[in-house]
Amino acid sequence: MKNKIIATSIELFEKQGFTETSIQHIVDALDVTKGTFYYYFQSKEQLLMDIHTQYIDDLLHRQQQVIAEYETAKDQLTAMFHLLIQDIEIQGARARVFLREMRHLMDTNSVEVKEKRDEFRLVIEEVIRQGIEAGELLESLDPAITAFAFLSLTNYSYNWFNPHGALTAAQLSDAYSDIFFKGIVKEG
Amino acid sequence: MKNKIIATSIELFEKQGFTETSIQHIVDALDVTKGTFYYYFQSKEQLLMDIHTQYIDDLLHRQQQVIAEYETAKDQLTAMFHLLIQDIEIQGARARVFLREMRHLMDTNSVEVKEKRDEFRLVIEEVIRQGIEAGELLESLDPAITAFAFLSLTNYSYNWFNPHGALTAAQLSDAYSDIFFKGIVKEG
Repeated sequence: MKNKIIATSIELFEKQGFTETSIQHIVDALDVTKGTFYYYFQSKEQLLMDIHTQYIDDLLHRQQQVIAEYETAKDQLTAMFHLLIQDIEIQGARARVFLREMRHLMDTNSVEVKEKRDEFRLVIEEVIRQGIEAGELLESLDPAITAFAFLSLTNYSYNWFNPHGALTAAQLSDAYSDIFFKGIVKEG
Repeated sequence: MKNKIIATSIELFEKQGFTETSIQHIVDALDVTKGTFYYYFQSKEQLLMDIHTQYIDDLLHRQQQVIAEYETAKDQLTAMFHLLIQDIEIQGARARVFLREMRHLMDTNSVEVKEKRDEFRLVIEEVIRQGIEAGELLESLDPAITAFAFLSLTNYSYNWFNPHGALTAAQLSDAYSDIFFKGIVKEG
């Protein structure tokens, strides 16, 4: 039941926003009582926190797998492009709620999730730093800014990328890898 | 007074979100009556629509200036990086409300603003297409995906870029231009 509440809430949060969705909406959609909801969650904010924690913990876990599996910065970053963009295809609503409703977490929860999001970003930064040191990536790069550029490409795509359209997640992540690695300008 | 209402609302929408801000909050912050509000706006949605329209019309206007002023795709895109990222510095709250509260526009308004946002994006796509034709940009690029990559970099930066921090808007747009044009990988 806990996972059913989470799944239904994600759908509702995605469709109508976190603020506009009440606990009543959630229990109505599931045809259960408020008591059932409160058995699993203290509040709507607690539920949102659970959604965020599940999502980021899973991402951090899969990021570690990518780091362990691949050696070069380029391969690790390629795998992370696929990971994040495929996520929009596989668990679109969850990804959108995660990216969009962050500011509705309560302050203490927000700090905890923010630390985990920072951890995810700092691993990317470290991949870039090591790629520069290994002579694989350009020395002129600022690893922090470059990590933000990477995350902009992946995280913004939930705003426009429609996984049910003609463009597949694999095609998009390939195209983004190409732009990110080689740029768009023809060499003189 | 109309511009004062707009300015105060942007501040409130940014701080506490559109849904959480009532007309009462807005008039209280300005120390005026609800009558004053309704003299200028039919509703909170109408006000949000005005904020969106002002913002996108201004952007479209400045985009046309950039197109007229510069010749190559690279120079036009560089100028647009500066334009959009400097906007976060100059009118941060307005940019954030624009990027964040789009889904709270009423459907008819949303279509109108969406068309203008699409127009802005399609101009970037056309700049890229012409750059490819001119032999300036890589033939392998998909102009549509490349335009989305450009907008991801600029539009996502409002999530993390703090114009009062050590990194300036000019430095960030230079770094993003470099990554976007030349990529991050050292040439073999």
